[in-house]
Amino acid sequence: VQAAILATGTELTRGELVNGNAAWLSERLTGLGIDVIEHAAVPDDSARIANTLARFGREVKLVVCTGGLGPTSDDLTAQTVAQLLCVPLVRDAHTIERIRERYRKFRGLERERLDPSELPEMLQKQADVPEGAQVLDNDAGVAAGFAISIGSARCYFLPGVPREMTHLFERHLEPAIGLRIARTSAQVHIRVFGLGESQVAERLADLEVGGALHRPGISFGYRAHFPETEVKVLAKVPAAATAAATAAELEAKTLANAVAEQAWARLIPYAYGGREDSYPAHVGELLRSRGLKLALAESCTGGLTAKLLTDIPGSSDFFQLSVVTYADAAKRDLLGVSASLLERHGAVSSEVAAAMAEGVLMRGNAEPGAVLGADIGAAITGIAGPGGGSAEKPVGTVWFAVSRRNSTNGFTTRTERRNWPGDRESVRIWAAYCALQLIAQAASSGTSSGTS
Amino acid sequence: VQAAILATGTELTRGELVNGNAAWLSERLTGLGIDVIEHAAVPDDSARIANTLARFGREVKLVVCTGGLGPTSDDLTAQTVAQLLCVPLVRDAHTIERIRERYRKFRGLERERLDPSELPEMLQKQADVPEGAQVLDNDAGVAAGFAISIGSARCYFLPGVPREMTHLFERHLEPAIGLRIARTSAQVHIRVFGLGESQVAERLADLEVGGALHRPGISFGYRAHFPETEVKVLAKVPAAATAAATAAELEAKTLANAVAEQAWARLIPYAYGGREDSYPAHVGELLRSRGLKLALAESCTGGLTAKLLTDIPGSSDFFQLSVVTYADAAKRDLLGVSASLLERHGAVSSEVAAAMAEGVLMRGNAEPGAVLGADIGAAITGIAGPGGGSAEKPVGTVWFAVSRRNSTNGFTTRTERRNWPGDRESVRIWAAYCALQLIAQAASSGTSSGTS
Repeated sequence: VQAAILATGTELTRGELVNGNAAWLSERLTGLGIDVIEHAAVPDDSARIANTLARFGREVKLVVCTGGLGPTSDDLTAQTVAQLLCVPLVRDAHTIERIRERYRKFRGLERERLDPSELPEMLQKQADVPEGAQVLDNDAGVAAGFAISIGSARCYFLPGVPREMTHLFERHLEPAIGLRIARTSAQVHIRVFGLGESQVAERLADLEVGGALHRPGISFGYRAHFPETEVKVLAKVPAAATAAATAAELEAKTLANAVAEQAWARLIPYAYGGREDSYPAHVGELLRSRGLKLALAESCTGGLTAKLLTDIPGSSDFFQLSVVTYADAAKRDLLGVSASLLERHGAVSSEVAAAMAEGVLMRGNAEPGAVLGADIGAAITGIAGPGGGSAEKPVGTVWFAVSRRNSTNGFTTRTERRNWPGDRESVRIWAAYCALQLIAQAASSGTSSGTS
Repeated sequence: VQAAILATGTELTRGELVNGNAAWLSERLTGLGIDVIEHAAVPDDSARIANTLARFGREVKLVVCTGGLGPTSDDLTAQTVAQLLCVPLVRDAHTIERIRERYRKFRGLERERLDPSELPEMLQKQADVPEGAQVLDNDAGVAAGFAISIGSARCYFLPGVPREMTHLFERHLEPAIGLRIARTSAQVHIRVFGLGESQVAERLADLEVGGALHRPGISFGYRAHFPETEVKVLAKVPAAATAAATAAELEAKTLANAVAEQAWARLIPYAYGGREDSYPAHVGELLRSRGLKLALAESCTGGLTAKLLTDIPGSSDFFQLSVVTYADAAKRDLLGVSASLLERHGAVSSEVAAAMAEGVLMRGNAEPGAVLGADIGAAITGIAGPGGGSAEKPVGTVWFAVSRRNSTNGFTTRTERRNWPGDRESVRIWAAYCALQLIAQAASSGTSSGTS
């Protein structure tokens, strides 16, 4: 079944409101196995609304339309549909009752009944539906929704207020549609950090359409979620008769999972989770599960790495502190990085990164009376730009250091230089994620015995 | 001029992504005096993309299309447009150069030049545009944008990544479109922190339609940009003949500016800037202009305040360090907050906030050999949730302290408690902004002479 979604409202085409309704409806319809082939949004303009509905009536079997059911003069949907189908508007008695009751309460009127003539026409208008329409009772608001056929499409008209729209969808549409549709597709998402879209696609080439291991019904989608990449594995099986619907859904799920497993194997060690997962939470979970405590020293990321980790509820289990030493003087005073080291190598260097990581690890271990006791110290020092770059160290150059305490209270420090050719914002985000990646590597590698 | 917006991407029609690009573009186009008559979103499907472009080519004069310019097999836009217009694809040499340079840096190749054959075809594809198209150089990313005529419409094709899309719009479209349009409206934006939408509207009631001081042609728009509010003052003057276009535009601008000034006066001290301004940059500028250096101690905001300040290029002029003392032990070891104070009052208290602010201010002033010398120390300690709240200190309770050094090397510390009834993410963002507000107040108030 193919569907289209129409949203009406000049506030949308003027950009005063983002069309979140279309995304919500699409996700729900996709979940029911329906193929949404278009979203359209048009202003409060009868001709444009009518043209779009007529077009959808030729192209799809199901239309969901939101907005334009309210009381004001720019709410034109019911009247437009009636004109398009050459039927009169009729006033729904049940909705009029609801409106009257609401009006009575609003005005604080004591009388049990109101004469219809006392109800402003503007309010009554919200009970108008085209003749022949099925009324979708709106117990979450005022205006009635309705369903009617236009061309080959069954069209559902819902209020634009998200709360009312979602309520009517769940109460009226989902049961009606769900009964008629057998799901024949399933999707699995894989989130990846450390490979770009094209690198991911290269690794999955043999599973793709045309590849040696491609399985019928499987397609892949890729999306950049800077600095991450998301892979979507979509499995479709032939449409099933209603009786075999459950079997078809299960078959699609099994196929999607099997191929996702093959894809995951090709994306190790960059793949880390599914659709709802986040990379910082993944790294945090790794630290938590190993009972490791982290201390950070951030320069160019300016607190962003700490922010990403403390976004996670309960992050105090593994995150102890971050020292954002933006100024060189702060690196000296707070982390004990020596002035001569800074002068000899510059703040963006392997040596200073290492001294920062060790310094922040030591703050929690070696100071008199210290109670911190971090297990991993990590440092980030780089040039985020726009200024500060040189031929030798261009903007986007970042040195990372991770220092891990071992069982004999010595430590091992590793440093790594990376470069990201982007603007200040993207360099900072990327650098924070890289630091998390190196922290995860140190956490996974077990306690090592060397010292730096 | 009438325009339409097309977004391509199965992630949109499946509801995995909200089409924020369409709203952003609509707002900008409306601001240029253009009438946006439709948004459409279609899946990555050549036939649907082509049909929609052909239809828009008949209906409007301007089309902006986003998405489908990336490297993977589901990026179909350039190829679809070429097919629709029966022209071949051509590879843009300048974009290939950009891709090659990026690839070289990525792979860490030392060689100056790469042979074209070494560049994966997938990457090169992003330089393909239909023959006859004007290339829109993408210096914010990789894939080239392009412009070409379809039917009666000039069509602009932009990447779907919002950062790249907005950059290309501002760099290429706005100048090109702006020249052709006679503007009869003007808008001024005022950004506000510290007042909600309805509080702002109340203060502007007399300037609004129906208010005592309302001026013809003026309307207001309000938008919540958590935690800020944006006010839009829109001035429209009667449509002008082309000859009088400049005069009309000037008249609209003058009117909008005059009313914006009245609005600003009613929003003091909460209004801080215009459309392109950010509150952290505003506070940073204030510190910079007074030659003040800031040191932060963050608990519940976990580095976010430092991140917001270091988003600003050149922030090392005023920002020295932040100590993210998430663990109580870190508050002791790094900031010298005494264990008994923590025990007596709890980490979320006026006393601990003050000790943190003074501790971080002192780190830069009192330590032997210290070279930091911060002027303002600020601390944030609160309960971001979801856990950790109590009847006395519910989730959303935050204590702030700002300590300002005075000329005799003493200091004044003020503390303030605030509460925000929201979830973890909103509490943290709001708290970081509140801290910036209190820092701005301390910076503005001049050096005071008392000690805490």
